[in-house]
Amino acid sequence: MAEILSWVPASEFGRVLAGIVDRRDRCAAFATLSRINTLYMIMRAGSGHIGSSFSAADIVTWLLLAELRAPFTPDGDVYFSSKGHDAPGLYAALIGLGRLDDDLVHRLRRLDGLPGHPDVGTPHTMFNTGSLGMGISKAKGAILADRLLGRARRFFVLTGDGELQEGQNWEALAGAVHHGMGELTVIVDHNKLQSDTWVRDVSDLGDIEAKFGAFGWGVLRCDGHDFDQLESALRERGQRLAGKPAVLVADTVKGAGCATFAATSMPDGQRQYRFHSGAPAIEDYRGAHGELCQAANELLRRHGLPALALRSADPPATTPSRAPRLTEVYGRELSQRAGGDPRIVALDADLLVDTGLLPFAQRHPRRLFECGIAEQDMVSMAGGMAAAGLLPFVHSFSCFLHSRSNEHMYNNATERRRIVYVGSLAGLLPATPGHSHQAVRDVSAVGGIPGLTVLEPAGPAEVVAALDYCLATPDSVYLRLASTPCPPEVAGLPAVPLVAGRGHVLRPGDPVVAIGAGPVVLTQLLRAADRLASAGVRLTVVDLPWLNRVDPDWLCQLATGCTALFVVENHYTHGGQADLVARALLELGLAAPPRFHGIGLTGIPRCGADLEVLAAHGLDAASLASTLLAHVPATAVAATGGPGVPDPRRN
Amino acid sequence: MAEILSWVPASEFGRVLAGIVDRRDRCAAFATLSRINTLYMIMRAGSGHIGSSFSAADIVTWLLLAELRAPFTPDGDVYFSSKGHDAPGLYAALIGLGRLDDDLVHRLRRLDGLPGHPDVGTPHTMFNTGSLGMGISKAKGAILADRLLGRARRFFVLTGDGELQEGQNWEALAGAVHHGMGELTVIVDHNKLQSDTWVRDVSDLGDIEAKFGAFGWGVLRCDGHDFDQLESALRERGQRLAGKPAVLVADTVKGAGCATFAATSMPDGQRQYRFHSGAPAIEDYRGAHGELCQAANELLRRHGLPALALRSADPPATTPSRAPRLTEVYGRELSQRAGGDPRIVALDADLLVDTGLLPFAQRHPRRLFECGIAEQDMVSMAGGMAAAGLLPFVHSFSCFLHSRSNEHMYNNATERRRIVYVGSLAGLLPATPGHSHQAVRDVSAVGGIPGLTVLEPAGPAEVVAALDYCLATPDSVYLRLASTPCPPEVAGLPAVPLVAGRGHVLRPGDPVVAIGAGPVVLTQLLRAADRLASAGVRLTVVDLPWLNRVDPDWLCQLATGCTALFVVENHYTHGGQADLVARALLELGLAAPPRFHGIGLTGIPRCGADLEVLAAHGLDAASLASTLLAHVPATAVAATGGPGVPDPRRN
Repeated sequence: MAEILSWVPASEFGRVLAGIVDRRDRCAAFATLSRINTLYMIMRAGSGHIGSSFSAADIVTWLLLAELRAPFTPDGDVYFSSKGHDAPGLYAALIGLGRLDDDLVHRLRRLDGLPGHPDVGTPHTMFNTGSLGMGISKAKGAILADRLLGRARRFFVLTGDGELQEGQNWEALAGAVHHGMGELTVIVDHNKLQSDTWVRDVSDLGDIEAKFGAFGWGVLRCDGHDFDQLESALRERGQRLAGKPAVLVADTVKGAGCATFAATSMPDGQRQYRFHSGAPAIEDYRGAHGELCQAANELLRRHGLPALALRSADPPATTPSRAPRLTEVYGRELSQRAGGDPRIVALDADLLVDTGLLPFAQRHPRRLFECGIAEQDMVSMAGGMAAAGLLPFVHSFSCFLHSRSNEHMYNNATERRRIVYVGSLAGLLPATPGHSHQAVRDVSAVGGIPGLTVLEPAGPAEVVAALDYCLATPDSVYLRLASTPCPPEVAGLPAVPLVAGRGHVLRPGDPVVAIGAGPVVLTQLLRAADRLASAGVRLTVVDLPWLNRVDPDWLCQLATGCTALFVVENHYTHGGQADLVARALLELGLAAPPRFHGIGLTGIPRCGADLEVLAAHGLDAASLASTLLAHVPATAVAATGGPGVPDPRRN
Repeated sequence: MAEILSWVPASEFGRVLAGIVDRRDRCAAFATLSRINTLYMIMRAGSGHIGSSFSAADIVTWLLLAELRAPFTPDGDVYFSSKGHDAPGLYAALIGLGRLDDDLVHRLRRLDGLPGHPDVGTPHTMFNTGSLGMGISKAKGAILADRLLGRARRFFVLTGDGELQEGQNWEALAGAVHHGMGELTVIVDHNKLQSDTWVRDVSDLGDIEAKFGAFGWGVLRCDGHDFDQLESALRERGQRLAGKPAVLVADTVKGAGCATFAATSMPDGQRQYRFHSGAPAIEDYRGAHGELCQAANELLRRHGLPALALRSADPPATTPSRAPRLTEVYGRELSQRAGGDPRIVALDADLLVDTGLLPFAQRHPRRLFECGIAEQDMVSMAGGMAAAGLLPFVHSFSCFLHSRSNEHMYNNATERRRIVYVGSLAGLLPATPGHSHQAVRDVSAVGGIPGLTVLEPAGPAEVVAALDYCLATPDSVYLRLASTPCPPEVAGLPAVPLVAGRGHVLRPGDPVVAIGAGPVVLTQLLRAADRLASAGVRLTVVDLPWLNRVDPDWLCQLATGCTALFVVENHYTHGGQADLVARALLELGLAAPPRFHGIGLTGIPRCGADLEVLAAHGLDAASLASTLLAHVPATAVAATGGPGVPDPRRN
């Protein structure tokens, strides 16, 4: 049964801000109320970054309430977070200040609500962040523009400490000094924990102050939860360090504000912080909510104010899926293969859990290389390992792997190294983190790399076959892995040996054929086929897991006699499988080629719950059924009851 | 008339190495002989990096002759250059040591010779470098692999100082400390000059020693032209700094070894170093060659050895082209437009001259932002500028722009910013620098970015039209600019207004149509058409400058009645214009679609002279004519003399 969750209405924020004069207590109360709502939003959304939002909450509060000049005006100071995954905390603060609609407190990570990572479509959001390491550069650009345009805004950019592993930050520092950017203050939310574990265990930052200092920046340090210290540090920044860029290293605690989430509550020896992302368990919610309300009410009482008047709501009913995830299957299988093949090593960019690598890390700790949030370095290191005779498997979310290290993958390819790149979280789903994490351009961005085969398995059995392929082929492979739980339609698909460029029929039917890859597309296509059956079309559904290879002979067999051929993609419709199949089909020179239509994303991915986002992009079963039907020639519908398309694999 | 050029045969290197016992003089003589051959190779090739090869020559000499343990053996120490454009210097040394075939001294930047930047196909070349900033990461990967495989090689990686502007270097440093990489020594060839001008004027490096030190590295400094200092610094590295990675900042002079090229000879106030790339003028060759021979002979005389016995050869006759370059036309035009549009700003990544930006820099110095070799930072800065209301034009070589800053361009697109990216040096030619610089994957890598139009003008008039388009469209544009001189076939093409997705006929003919874009493809196609005419096929040649957009109506008009349609690409054949046109053509659902065939690169670009490389890839006029002819249906050839294809633009 769903728990009732409580939140603080904006009116209560207003009452507290009006009722507490002491600036320190006022900020403390505001930050606590923001944390209550942050927790509410993440519980309601079912995911989101508690730890990072809480560690930054006091800094954000101080900036918005005390430091920024004329915030939220065109010429006023600007604050934004480069790490971006602390967005729920900022949303809570903006709602508390009346800068975002009160109702949005219920709409985190929902369609037309508040996206999982910052997006310029949200009021008072200047930049899309969440792809790490871009924030300082963005602020620099805006400052140089302001100077030309005669504006004098100050920019305050929050970065994570793990985020500083990204090389772009260090690229950005020199130019800021060169231009004497007194307008730019970077605040490092130094909570010492990144996605997987302690920053020092991933890739020790060493002496952050010395690093910034060596790059010519002014350096300050303070307790990021102490408003007095924040005030004096920022005052010093404006006085002693005017005329140059400055960094404030703010020592914080991940999950600060309540003992339940505070990293300081972690038992000795526990490596993994439990509240980086994802909604807390209900017991943790209760504990944290109670602590936060108590802290708020003590402050209110001290200032003679009545206790908080919370509002409550049932969260949407959700059932956590127990379906298998391809990343889990992959991780177990890789660990097992590595037992028999000492060439196999794994590289990871701070996503050990999410990429399925825990079993590998436990069984082969000497062959697991944690590279930190440094994808360029990781991919070039893999090139070095391959040159020395190993077979590297390189892991990150596909959104970062295909793009941040794009040139590095190509460089490895020009050396003809054999490397397996594993991009998880591929495709439109989960749609809750937003477009920085939705990898729907990966096939086009890496598909043209010579000697690199892009392969997307649909279910657990195909993941196993894909690993067989990776170990047998002389080519490099980009393994595109969806991270959502596998729906039953694809979870139980039988093992079929993979032959490069050839697909196989999942559901035989009329000579009206839809091709797709991966669990998301094939599930929706199989469901669409059910719907189409009632419209008199027996759709043939084909799994073609090869995203940049198609065997012309196989395609010729499949297409001959077809009246209509569709390719449906969990990807932008440009540059992916539809282009590939269309080109190959046209080059076959069939006398009577089938009608062809490709379906995929045409716009930037929306953020929201999975099914609502699939529907918004026309990629759910119902939309697909109607799009397909609209493109099936009338003659094909009339042909229902015909012999159907044989599986060319069986010939 | 071509000058006779002289080189030192390997036997002379052998005589000198055998005849001079004193290690310092032996190294000095070897370095001088290497410089003579470096100069010869670059003169003969007509291009190459003198300044960087000369500044590194003494370091390379010391490493190869005195420092490396068992170099050139599988378990021996490894030296390589991360900056890579000092390759001619390394080749000269390897030839001198008998590690490369003597005859290769004549084959710099020629097919099957010595590539413009390092390639693993050359003996004793472990990594492909020249894409800056990857070297430290590569070495780290090899070291970690060595540890697993029980090997104990030391790695010496040379970097440029300008190269340190790339963020990947700083990504790489932390992990090396984390792993206690005593095997890794980075040597910074600190010659204070990068491609365009002084490093301090581009993006001041500040205190390099403090920077590396702050990242936890051991730090040493010495004169990079003093063998005694190199020896003692490297001894100290092994003794005092064992067990940790270390950097040796080697103070050098760009072009060191002769007054002609030495940066110390630059007059006060001269900003631009003249010998970064490109062959020197013949007077400079004579001066430098004389100086170097004199220095060598003085050393030989001091050790009682006969003077150098040089060999001479005529270089291949070449005529420098006076044809216009699209980058020059573009640069002049942009500067002029900016005079009337204050929103226009230009960003550059240390390629002011090569991207055509000099006129802009001179006329609008406050609106020219030199970002250094930091493409990620540059592209995100452009996002910041666009957010603040400017219209940024972002410049680099296409090879770096499309890939190093791939995620950053996408991030800007998700913010729906309007930005013009200008990737010059696009395509296969010039083929002399090698594949790190040949951008033949750019269309596929960025073509899928929503709201980004990829446009490649063919001649000067189309460059002007393209700028008109960039200033009028609400979209962002990726302007793909070939940098080779424009052949007469395209230099004088008349101005035709650009309409997105629509091409125009350059040469009317039979209903056998070849589509292409840019000066290289269209020149070869027009020449192929001449050849085909004698085979009875009047090829229709169409300029379609849109690489990721095609107008279905225009295509329908063009293709209706066509018997064969070809797309020829200065790009890999996967992921570019052929896929685009094929997909659109198939989706038109024509009852009798033309035969379709796409032609482009299928393998990694070769390095060599332009025409030999075009031919090697089947993209020269003769190869194209025969490929086209092989794919033209017999009926079409018989139809010669028919009415031809009308230009659909005229309808």
